[in-house]
Amino acid sequence: MPKKQICASAVEAVADVSDGASLLVHSFGPPQAWPTDCLLALAERGVRDLTIICNAPSAGPTSLNVLADKKQIRKIVCSYVGSPSMPTPLSDMVKAREIELEMVPQGTLAERVRAGGAGLAGFYTPTGVGTEIAKGKEERTFDGKKFIFEHAIRADFGLLQAYQADPFGNLTYRRGMRNFAPAFATAARTTIAEVKEIVGLGDIDPEAVVTPGIFVDRIVRTTTHIDIGILRQILKLVGRSNDMQGRAVTDGGPMGLPADLMAMKVATLLRTGEYVNLGIGLPTMVSNFVEGRDVTLHSENGILGYGAFPPEGAEDIDLYNASGQLVSAVDGTSYFDSTVSFAMARTGRVTSVVLGAFQVAQSGDLANWSTPDGSGGIGGAMDLATGGARIIALCYHLEKSGRSKLVDKLTYPPTALGCVRSVVTDLAWIDIDGEGFVLRELAPGLSVDDVKAATGAPLRVAGDICEMSFG
Amino acid sequence: MPKKQICASAVEAVADVSDGASLLVHSFGPPQAWPTDCLLALAERGVRDLTIICNAPSAGPTSLNVLADKKQIRKIVCSYVGSPSMPTPLSDMVKAREIELEMVPQGTLAERVRAGGAGLAGFYTPTGVGTEIAKGKEERTFDGKKFIFEHAIRADFGLLQAYQADPFGNLTYRRGMRNFAPAFATAARTTIAEVKEIVGLGDIDPEAVVTPGIFVDRIVRTTTHIDIGILRQILKLVGRSNDMQGRAVTDGGPMGLPADLMAMKVATLLRTGEYVNLGIGLPTMVSNFVEGRDVTLHSENGILGYGAFPPEGAEDIDLYNASGQLVSAVDGTSYFDSTVSFAMARTGRVTSVVLGAFQVAQSGDLANWSTPDGSGGIGGAMDLATGGARIIALCYHLEKSGRSKLVDKLTYPPTALGCVRSVVTDLAWIDIDGEGFVLRELAPGLSVDDVKAATGAPLRVAGDICEMSFG
Repeated sequence: MPKKQICASAVEAVADVSDGASLLVHSFGPPQAWPTDCLLALAERGVRDLTIICNAPSAGPTSLNVLADKKQIRKIVCSYVGSPSMPTPLSDMVKAREIELEMVPQGTLAERVRAGGAGLAGFYTPTGVGTEIAKGKEERTFDGKKFIFEHAIRADFGLLQAYQADPFGNLTYRRGMRNFAPAFATAARTTIAEVKEIVGLGDIDPEAVVTPGIFVDRIVRTTTHIDIGILRQILKLVGRSNDMQGRAVTDGGPMGLPADLMAMKVATLLRTGEYVNLGIGLPTMVSNFVEGRDVTLHSENGILGYGAFPPEGAEDIDLYNASGQLVSAVDGTSYFDSTVSFAMARTGRVTSVVLGAFQVAQSGDLANWSTPDGSGGIGGAMDLATGGARIIALCYHLEKSGRSKLVDKLTYPPTALGCVRSVVTDLAWIDIDGEGFVLRELAPGLSVDDVKAATGAPLRVAGDICEMSFG
Repeated sequence: MPKKQICASAVEAVADVSDGASLLVHSFGPPQAWPTDCLLALAERGVRDLTIICNAPSAGPTSLNVLADKKQIRKIVCSYVGSPSMPTPLSDMVKAREIELEMVPQGTLAERVRAGGAGLAGFYTPTGVGTEIAKGKEERTFDGKKFIFEHAIRADFGLLQAYQADPFGNLTYRRGMRNFAPAFATAARTTIAEVKEIVGLGDIDPEAVVTPGIFVDRIVRTTTHIDIGILRQILKLVGRSNDMQGRAVTDGGPMGLPADLMAMKVATLLRTGEYVNLGIGLPTMVSNFVEGRDVTLHSENGILGYGAFPPEGAEDIDLYNASGQLVSAVDGTSYFDSTVSFAMARTGRVTSVVLGAFQVAQSGDLANWSTPDGSGGIGGAMDLATGGARIIALCYHLEKSGRSKLVDKLTYPPTALGCVRSVVTDLAWIDIDGEGFVLRELAPGLSVDDVKAATGAPLRVAGDICEMSFG
């Protein structure tokens, strides 16, 4: 079996990356998970005009910001630039159009690279139909359902961060680390794995190999070690930033529920035995209230079944959910890669999805990725919203400006059409049926008129309307 | 996490399969590897008009023949019906058109089902361009290369055979067992896993789960246990049948090399460090001669790096190559599923492929799957031939009829166009360059004129022509 090039340093590993090269950079996005040595080596070498394909390029100090800082990036292909409330050098340059941006839904990104690595030219996906993502793309109907065509992606280089490598290039990952790596490994002309350990011949159980060595050309041992104390601080900052997204200032309006009660209400809507995905921001708080509910949490980075936030000292830096939060495993947890994760989403095997919202229209149309004030990005929302799952929007009832988020028609770019079935806000639980909004429960102390006044579209009242229950 | 239905028997597991249902049946094809209890239960229930998607439906006594026997199958979608020299009830019914046949290249079959399970409508693949498989399908050019469109496949039921299941439906497989299962698990409305063991909650390492439980609806413990003695006999029969395929009777013609020397010659053409796939029949014999050559063998069912045939008593019934032969693991072996296996093939990561041949044209066109006398099927050959690997055809120089297999133009249906680079026969080693056949080496005792007389197209002679060497 051919032994792969084991590089003495990351500088050696990326020595032939030239100006204008395209790179697949494996990271889901959390601050801790990057092929850091390779990125620093590229920064040191100063190569320019790079095209980089990467899910969330701007997360944390060791992200693609190390290349943005030195103006080495020409174009980014990604699903999430970063939180607008936490600007970075990279997101600033994207905003200033100094870096070209191609925004791709997360599941589509994984699938496009997988297609490239499988020798296919492209595929038809339902993700993005009716949105800006579909513009300029072929739309085609199969069995009465609309799909858009997406081209395969291949690149000159792939930079992976993995756990173990053997000299043949066989790779393992830990916990939530797999995400884009198995696809990215296949689609580069030269694949470079930055790993925590290089083990001996035959030391990896053949059943445990995730990326077979045939896809790997070079191996380099990482010298970057995460300081868990610093990581905790970063994650707190990110968490705080996410909590702030879309928070309504209800000056002069009705006082509504605090965020934790909004999340608790959503938890009561989940049914026994459901597989549930929680979007970034407020929705992640729902995980605090699912204990005892027999609900299985799905995370886009490739985890099915995760539990509570671990206590300090018990964290595993490779066990993080799609919001980058450190979580714990439960009995029955499984790990897999992003393409499998979105297969679950696109086919409705994930039965309920809780998403943040900028706007929800009475038709069920959802806008949650882009506003005129700025855009964090799409993440997995478009894929999660197209699989036929029950979409529960969790958001404050009003924008900061005081305008309602529950609207007649969307004025912001849609994430998906006709997908939202329920909306839980600080003021109410509202369902969407074929004819529009139906008020189901009121936050304590509010009247039907309070909610009607805060809602930008007709609001019918359910026959059994009552005060909000959390049982 | 939701517990899945654990069925007391396979009859219970398939109780709601009704007449006209479509089923994905997981088996690569070897005699030992079927969800046997479920197939027997379907036979017992007598449901009819079934559409069955299955790689090689006719291999061994516990194959789909148990349903063909009782005329329960309306249509088969497969890549390989079975060896024409070993007819079965199923292959006879296909030949008599009592069962409708849709022939699909093996990699395309895996990919179509994967697409269905990922919520995609279809994709463009290079496999099958210029062949009968492309007829009636959309052809489209991307970046100057031709692709054909293939539709996704979904089905009512999926029948898997797996190793372990936990009560959440998480599944593991052993060795070469994965093949189509990870894709088939995702694409059925109801997925039923027939397993060797049911283990407790949390007993499967989350990293070791291959099919996450979200894809699995029912579990049943198999009662079928393979008798290794009977299996050895079946495999000997199958092997003998494969050896016979395409053997030339050279009555009155020149005496050529025996099969083992032909295989030994091919082994000398393989280069250090190569990843090599050996097709069914004669090519599998090459594995007897690669020891010490640092060649890594790739098998379509999801093995990279396998070794010699194990001695009697040391066999592992789940460790078989794509020809169904029991093989051994080596240092660095990895297991994966069919979609990954064909990603390796379609992108040229598998660098050399040895295939049997019915005809090779001077243009490099290959025919190896269908003749007027009958057809075993395509298997993985079309996918393996389209990835840009060096294709070495290994075959007898003449047909049984005495006609040359090396021809001016193909008269049999092509497997792929312009792909063959070398041909090794019982008479000679011949290369194909841009202008046709070039004689490189002669079998001992033969003259250039002997080989010219046996070749159905112009044959140039290399300047350094010599007697065949095996070093």
